[in-house]
Amino acid sequence: MSRVFNFSAGPATLPEEVLRQAAEEMVDWHGSGQSVMEMSHRGKEFMGIAAAAEADLRELMGIPANYKVLFLQGGASLQFEMIPINLLRGKGTADYVHTGEWAKKAIKAARIFGNVNVVASAEDKAFTYAPAQAGWKLDKNAAYVHYTANETIGGVEFQWTPETGDVPLVCDMSSNILSRAIDVSKYGLIYAGAQKNIGPAGLTIVIVRDDLVGKAQPTPPPMLDYKTHVDAESMYNTPPTYSIYIAGLVFQWLKKNGGVAAMERKNVEKSKLLYDYLGTTDFYRNPVNPADRSRMNVPFTLKDAALDEAFLKGAKERGMTQLKGHRSVGGMRASIYNAMPVAGVKALVDYMREFEKSHG
Amino acid sequence: MSRVFNFSAGPATLPEEVLRQAAEEMVDWHGSGQSVMEMSHRGKEFMGIAAAAEADLRELMGIPANYKVLFLQGGASLQFEMIPINLLRGKGTADYVHTGEWAKKAIKAARIFGNVNVVASAEDKAFTYAPAQAGWKLDKNAAYVHYTANETIGGVEFQWTPETGDVPLVCDMSSNILSRAIDVSKYGLIYAGAQKNIGPAGLTIVIVRDDLVGKAQPTPPPMLDYKTHVDAESMYNTPPTYSIYIAGLVFQWLKKNGGVAAMERKNVEKSKLLYDYLGTTDFYRNPVNPADRSRMNVPFTLKDAALDEAFLKGAKERGMTQLKGHRSVGGMRASIYNAMPVAGVKALVDYMREFEKSHG
Repeated sequence: MSRVFNFSAGPATLPEEVLRQAAEEMVDWHGSGQSVMEMSHRGKEFMGIAAAAEADLRELMGIPANYKVLFLQGGASLQFEMIPINLLRGKGTADYVHTGEWAKKAIKAARIFGNVNVVASAEDKAFTYAPAQAGWKLDKNAAYVHYTANETIGGVEFQWTPETGDVPLVCDMSSNILSRAIDVSKYGLIYAGAQKNIGPAGLTIVIVRDDLVGKAQPTPPPMLDYKTHVDAESMYNTPPTYSIYIAGLVFQWLKKNGGVAAMERKNVEKSKLLYDYLGTTDFYRNPVNPADRSRMNVPFTLKDAALDEAFLKGAKERGMTQLKGHRSVGGMRASIYNAMPVAGVKALVDYMREFEKSHG
Repeated sequence: MSRVFNFSAGPATLPEEVLRQAAEEMVDWHGSGQSVMEMSHRGKEFMGIAAAAEADLRELMGIPANYKVLFLQGGASLQFEMIPINLLRGKGTADYVHTGEWAKKAIKAARIFGNVNVVASAEDKAFTYAPAQAGWKLDKNAAYVHYTANETIGGVEFQWTPETGDVPLVCDMSSNILSRAIDVSKYGLIYAGAQKNIGPAGLTIVIVRDDLVGKAQPTPPPMLDYKTHVDAESMYNTPPTYSIYIAGLVFQWLKKNGGVAAMERKNVEKSKLLYDYLGTTDFYRNPVNPADRSRMNVPFTLKDAALDEAFLKGAKERGMTQLKGHRSVGGMRASIYNAMPVAGVKALVDYMREFEKSHG
């Protein structure tokens, strides 16, 4: 079969160019006679690959020198626990913004370790919007403020960065990192599972301002302490080497294709194609407040859920896969991360229009 | 360059056949139009890959039905912490056998969570042997007994399985899992980082007897609780999908090549080639008690350390890499896991003999 347009929410589609390069280099990387998968993590070949990946990520995101970049394991789910363990720093209370499924998981995990103030919640409208900062009940003594930049399931994305003054801002950027320009210096800590906009599952990126490292009270066990990983430059134990290599190839691909600014333009274009079409019909419906609609994940329902199966079947026949919505919300979801080409979204909109005509 | 003989201690050489298959399937797995890296972990394609990997591992190791198999992240280092967190079960004391660098790390981590009795130690002879069980001072009320089946750095391997009666036996099998037949039913928990005998770094295998799951006191945070991962069948959060796929290919390769019994014969043959030669010369030296010598990692020193660099240079010219010993012990180390062909070890012995002649 030729390549499909894969709308999976994560693990997700990767640039075909990156996959072809990985295939080519699999058995013999750059004439070294070995696969990247086989390289000692402390050998000069892999150290070079990891250093280049970090340098490219720093360049792409404009990460200031006083921020550490960590390549860890465990996904955002482990960060949900490591963040309070490391950042409460004896303060006991953290502020969280509740915007949906992923915020809920972060809040639940944080409650194990301290008090959580939910300073704003979109629960009153079934998580279909991003609460405006004017209504947030921030605590000046909170250890940090946590929010979820993009809700993968609900399809809600912050189009702005919260202002939290001296209180460190902590952000789950798993599903929109590198998809739009952000000012890293406004954040205390940014984290992201790699499997949406970056590379294979099993790699987690943490970007942390250096003054927040090593202040945990009580001191966590080494594997849960950011200080361990900062001190060892992500090599306290064997890092997920092959995933770091693929992430590095994706960073190179991003640079070659105009970086984050170009990706943002493309993501605006792609999401606009879908939302503009959704605005012309009531055959499909997206419940999200227009100003807060995600550029990455576009959930929509068919007016008649009895047609869901026929819709998915037709999509698959046309080479479009993984459009089924998350089991918690039903309907459809098109995840259109950086690596999804404009052509994929156009094909989807064409098909949606065609399906509406034949079933509307 | 053609493929080298890569003697890295981990990440380590993989079967060329597996790498070639991975390369071929990278862009389009089995006609699905997508890479395994891009598959939703909850889609039927990846669920099938993961189920097959588990079934093959169960078959290869003869894992009884009352044991759970987990595919986790974080390496053995995270297990060093998760084991006491989960298995102390309010008992407060665990027995550990101290055999070298890796045992030391496991002991250090366990001491954060409870009392550790070092019931036997090889420190008196610089960790050059496996302490006979007759001398172990086991505590019948210990929560568990922990040992390191193979010390990657010291080159010491247990050729026998300890008997601990009703006290669960816990084993770090990172560097010799699947290299020899073992009776899983004698263990409470076995764990192994994948990057030596299994696949890419970033995957950790945990095999745990079901009565040990869910008894932790106090209840750990979800990501550190075996129960979370058992209940979710390793899908509480996104697992390291691509690494699981490669591990699955390695398991298939093992089955096709006679399984663990055939590997064990091959590993005996390979290590014998090296140790037999070492027995004929005092130009090279291996300090380990002959009965406890590792089949996986063969450390040796040159009589004259001033020749180390010339030795490594000549080896590299002959396509043999990563022979430099661990920085903590110096000298050389040949890691000869399952995927190292007999031809690689023969080439190494030939070179060692040649080098001895020209420099002896």
